[in-house]
Amino acid sequence: MQKTLADIGEFGLINRIQKILNKKDCKLPEVTLGIGDDTAAFNPKSGFELLVTCDCLVEGTHFLPDYITPHELGRRAMAINISDIGAMGGRPLYALVSLGLNPQAPVKYIEDMYLGFLDELNPLEACIIGGNLTKTQKPLFIDITVIGEVEIGRKLLRSSAKPGDKILVTGYPGQSAAGLKILLNEGKSDGKNDHPLIRAYNTPSHRAKEGQAIAQSGCGGAMIDTSDGFLSDLRHICVESHVGADLVEDKFPISEALRDAAARLNCSPVEFFLQASDDYELIFTCTPENVNKIRSAVSAVSDVPVSEIGWISKSAGKIQIERRDGTLYRPDPSGWNHYQIKEENNV
Amino acid sequence: MQKTLADIGEFGLINRIQKILNKKDCKLPEVTLGIGDDTAAFNPKSGFELLVTCDCLVEGTHFLPDYITPHELGRRAMAINISDIGAMGGRPLYALVSLGLNPQAPVKYIEDMYLGFLDELNPLEACIIGGNLTKTQKPLFIDITVIGEVEIGRKLLRSSAKPGDKILVTGYPGQSAAGLKILLNEGKSDGKNDHPLIRAYNTPSHRAKEGQAIAQSGCGGAMIDTSDGFLSDLRHICVESHVGADLVEDKFPISEALRDAAARLNCSPVEFFLQASDDYELIFTCTPENVNKIRSAVSAVSDVPVSEIGWISKSAGKIQIERRDGTLYRPDPSGWNHYQIKEENNV
Repeated sequence: MQKTLADIGEFGLINRIQKILNKKDCKLPEVTLGIGDDTAAFNPKSGFELLVTCDCLVEGTHFLPDYITPHELGRRAMAINISDIGAMGGRPLYALVSLGLNPQAPVKYIEDMYLGFLDELNPLEACIIGGNLTKTQKPLFIDITVIGEVEIGRKLLRSSAKPGDKILVTGYPGQSAAGLKILLNEGKSDGKNDHPLIRAYNTPSHRAKEGQAIAQSGCGGAMIDTSDGFLSDLRHICVESHVGADLVEDKFPISEALRDAAARLNCSPVEFFLQASDDYELIFTCTPENVNKIRSAVSAVSDVPVSEIGWISKSAGKIQIERRDGTLYRPDPSGWNHYQIKEENNV
Repeated sequence: MQKTLADIGEFGLINRIQKILNKKDCKLPEVTLGIGDDTAAFNPKSGFELLVTCDCLVEGTHFLPDYITPHELGRRAMAINISDIGAMGGRPLYALVSLGLNPQAPVKYIEDMYLGFLDELNPLEACIIGGNLTKTQKPLFIDITVIGEVEIGRKLLRSSAKPGDKILVTGYPGQSAAGLKILLNEGKSDGKNDHPLIRAYNTPSHRAKEGQAIAQSGCGGAMIDTSDGFLSDLRHICVESHVGADLVEDKFPISEALRDAAARLNCSPVEFFLQASDDYELIFTCTPENVNKIRSAVSAVSDVPVSEIGWISKSAGKIQIERRDGTLYRPDPSGWNHYQIKEENNV
């Protein structure tokens, strides 16, 4: 029978986590104290600001255990936090993992989650320095804090977009929402997790390297990640920068996979692109003369496509889209709003 | 009818929280970005290490809403995190508050929790710089990360106790456990929260100022806060320092209030002192010649009593206690172990 948390106790679990970290975690000389005391401790580097963010996944709200493996869940929970550091142009350094766990949770499930966390952190030479374990009945929750750094003067805010700036986006927003729909339509994922859109939902890629390259180029304007959905996140830039946005539908990056899936699901690929979707791509702005410099900076570190899809206007808060036939429309904003029932997305 | 989260939505709640912070929060010049972007940002001071900790309260596991007001709950959740920074000898600076909330939660309940958070942070000139709001069905959870700083070379670890060191403790450990017992025995707290032991449970004091003073004195050895219970936390020092502890029962600081309550509850006050209790006092060690220096350092910032209750021995892992009659015994360790069913404390 599989060992549960109740069998080995809190300190037994901490020992097992410590073993995984000793084997797989990066060792950073700046960390002066890791897991096992009242706090963790590290020496910040001079010349850098520190960035800090936290994000939480709750069973039943953000994931259903039957549809995602613990390793995927660990990757996803970590990637969405790394994404926020990347969206400032920063480099992720340290994570604290706070888990709400049922005493009947299998120990292996938790160990697999940790391996998932580390599979996202290791390539960035970032590490887990602390956390917390809490008993809860259902639902499981995973709350992660990530600390990163950015050179002083280089961080990219939501509030820095200027009229006339180009609007660019990485990758293919909307894929994750389509992946979720396929997952829910087709029932439990017995081997179906290999579908590229389901992968985009279960283990989204963050764009931390790309965000860092954009910030380091010195050519970026505003930046945000698409965690709420493209339109909702672009709206954050517009509101914080007191500007509007004119978009060209024909330029939206829509992957073949998304186009096929949308046809099969009898949905519009453009709607998938615009509305609530957990993709963790970057939306950013820059002056027209800097577009090529930023493209070069990104392509030096990544194969992810960067698409120019419109420009920032003076019309504060107004987002409009030009259709293929040249007509204009103002899209209905929805995106992810966790609490308003009528708009909520329950997984 | 009271407004709920579902009525105002996530962004409505963020606006209300922002208003409370604007009115009541401290403004620290080092914070270069607060709530409202992908991350918060701050400039670390040179000459300091950064400390980081997180701790979580879950409804049903750590509190029952009928027994604690939202303002008390906010204070408690923040105090236990501040306590960890204090237990390293550090100064708390920034908090991130991650909440798991039911859509039907009254907005006022959440606002009152924030006022509680700030009532703990404001006196320390610490502030909330970020967080997260997550939808969950029951139970409510409050997961807080606190970042603090300590002068390089001054942090006090669990692993620094040396044979011959004196063992000291602040305040009156055990009061919180007795307060919890009274609360559960006497039913819902209609005005009963004024009982000093119930206050000790619902709104425990942290000892951050005292911890900082001990670290700054340069005379401290090992230090830890009593979040699991005196014996369990002293054991952490013994294990990490590879030492033992000899304690003198007659020197245990047991308040009149605890003595009275123990008699009424037909329990031993010494058991309350030793076993699982959420008190957030400090246990620390120092060489005999430094005891008076540390007492002076603490009394310069605080009226909290400091009691000398024993000394560190060479016998790794062995804790023994001398009774009034001079006989010795080895106490049974329990403390707070979240997952092992036989030992768990369900509130």
